Amino acid sequence: MSLIIVGSMAFDAIETPFGKTDKIVGGAATYAAYAAANFVKPVQLVSIVGYDFPKEEMAELKSRGGQLDGVEIVPDKKSFFWSGRYHEDMNSRDTLVTDLNVLADFKPKVPDSYQGAEFLMLGNLAPATQLSVIKQMKTRPKLIAMDTMNFWMEIALDDLKEVLKQVDLLMVNDAEARQLTGQFSLVKAAKTILTMGPKFLIIKKGEHGALLFHGDNVFFAPALPLEEVFDPTGAGDTFAGGFMGHLAKTGDISFDNMKRAIIVGSAMASYCVEKFGPTRLKEINKEDIDRRLEQFKELVNFEIELV
Amino acid sequence: MSLIIVGSMAFDAIETPFGKTDKIVGGAATYAAYAAANFVKPVQLVSIVGYDFPKEEMAELKSRGGQLDGVEIVPDKKSFFWSGRYHEDMNSRDTLVTDLNVLADFKPKVPDSYQGAEFLMLGNLAPATQLSVIKQMKTRPKLIAMDTMNFWMEIALDDLKEVLKQVDLLMVNDAEARQLTGQFSLVKAAKTILTMGPKFLIIKKGEHGALLFHGDNVFFAPALPLEEVFDPTGAGDTFAGGFMGHLAKTGDISFDNMKRAIIVGSAMASYCVEKFGPTRLKEINKEDIDRRLEQFKELVNFEIELV
Repeated sequence: MSLIIVGSMAFDAIETPFGKTDKIVGGAATYAAYAAANFVKPVQLVSIVGYDFPKEEMAELKSRGGQLDGVEIVPDKKSFFWSGRYHEDMNSRDTLVTDLNVLADFKPKVPDSYQGAEFLMLGNLAPATQLSVIKQMKTRPKLIAMDTMNFWMEIALDDLKEVLKQVDLLMVNDAEARQLTGQFSLVKAAKTILTMGPKFLIIKKGEHGALLFHGDNVFFAPALPLEEVFDPTGAGDTFAGGFMGHLAKTGDISFDNMKRAIIVGSAMASYCVEKFGPTRLKEINKEDIDRRLEQFKELVNFEIELV
Repeated sequence: MSLIIVGSMAFDAIETPFGKTDKIVGGAATYAAYAAANFVKPVQLVSIVGYDFPKEEMAELKSRGGQLDGVEIVPDKKSFFWSGRYHEDMNSRDTLVTDLNVLADFKPKVPDSYQGAEFLMLGNLAPATQLSVIKQMKTRPKLIAMDTMNFWMEIALDDLKEVLKQVDLLMVNDAEARQLTGQFSLVKAAKTILTMGPKFLIIKKGEHGALLFHGDNVFFAPALPLEEVFDPTGAGDTFAGGFMGHLAKTGDISFDNMKRAIIVGSAMASYCVEKFGPTRLKEINKEDIDRRLEQFKELVNFEIELV
């Protein structure tokens, strides 16, 4: 089954306690696509880049199953650029530069060749932009998931509430769930969000794992304890890509299968953070992924007899 | 099999975002004993209290399987008293008052009636005090576990290192593991600690769960996502009590059984935080505990086919 991923393709410059990069390729859609392509093909991208986005990266994405009909190339503008510096705990960072460039006028167009896709992932974009994508779909996808951020809660809350009504799954981090609901307790925040539209909610907690809520059910997946988190950039997008990739591969949107999808997403994210940018995601193969899924089983599964 | 718990029995006055208590019963050994007594009897306490510690609490502990031969009652001094205020996130707190009182001269004596115990839990005390307990044991217990805190790392590091060589399991929180080793990565910190004496290490992360390390094995148990953490005081000690109680009940110190013990400890801790002090621990029964163990299974267990 096919999967559409809408989001940024961009450049990042990153500083962590372990090192520093010049401009390297990044962007939510890039990370999500590299992760998802391990599980489903095609991965249909909707994005926008400038004249400076590397042709080799486009070719690489294509060779792995990425479909690029929906990626607009603006010939006289630069690609979105973000630069940031991580603190020692890697859970917080300072943004040094945000150059929107092409992203400022992003009006995503869903190509005809993408119509009929059963899975749609809306990356973090203006809510009105996310809504415009949903409206372009001639057949409603089986599952629409979205990401968002605190910025949109501050400047476009009404639009955000409108999109929330149209999606099946929201993926946010703990601070965003708290801000959206005004509830400090994540369990209470989840209950509130599940009345706002989405039937499924994932709350990402970085190195502390992720929670999946659906009705009265809750599932928790830890992050893999790693010796070193080298660069957390893109981990959340990689998680989303692995999650959606597994769902699209299996076509099964039951709660039990979403549990598996969250573990798959966590496994992909655990690779992402091992090197700068999406580098590590391009190195791993099916055996690597399977080995890490086994590690997750050993990490959390237990048997207990109630006597 | 019997279990010895060495630690404080005390009074606390607690302030949380949800309310405030006057002096109520607390202390590491008290919490641990209430938790452990659900799984093993007797729970042999070694502690010290003043004239003011309530006789009814002693009677309550005894009625639940606590053995008090090792609890010294000092007729002319007051019990240890701690007062603190939690911040909104409940992961940090300010200490308002610490009155050591009887605890200042605590020289634990292991009664003859406790000799032969197979499980020994050394609560957070001066390392020299912990060591004196180990030396009093005529037969070495099958498993010796200990807690400690940053304070001892600062003023008694050599003593602490000496005790570490004598124990099988260390239980600390994430900040303490980092301070003890100078390693920010918990995985690296764990590797270092496992060369210092203990063959097993538990790193407690409060609301973010707990990690168990042994050789190259690692197991993670989340905290149960709760609508409200009413009062986190004693949660760590309750966790330790449930953990040791399960081990003592089963007599099995394999890694697989320690996984179960960590889940049991987490289940007990999840009850502890629902009300002030050890109140909730006195209300629950076997069915309540089993129900929560089931919740943990649903929370983390998953099945995945590698295809």
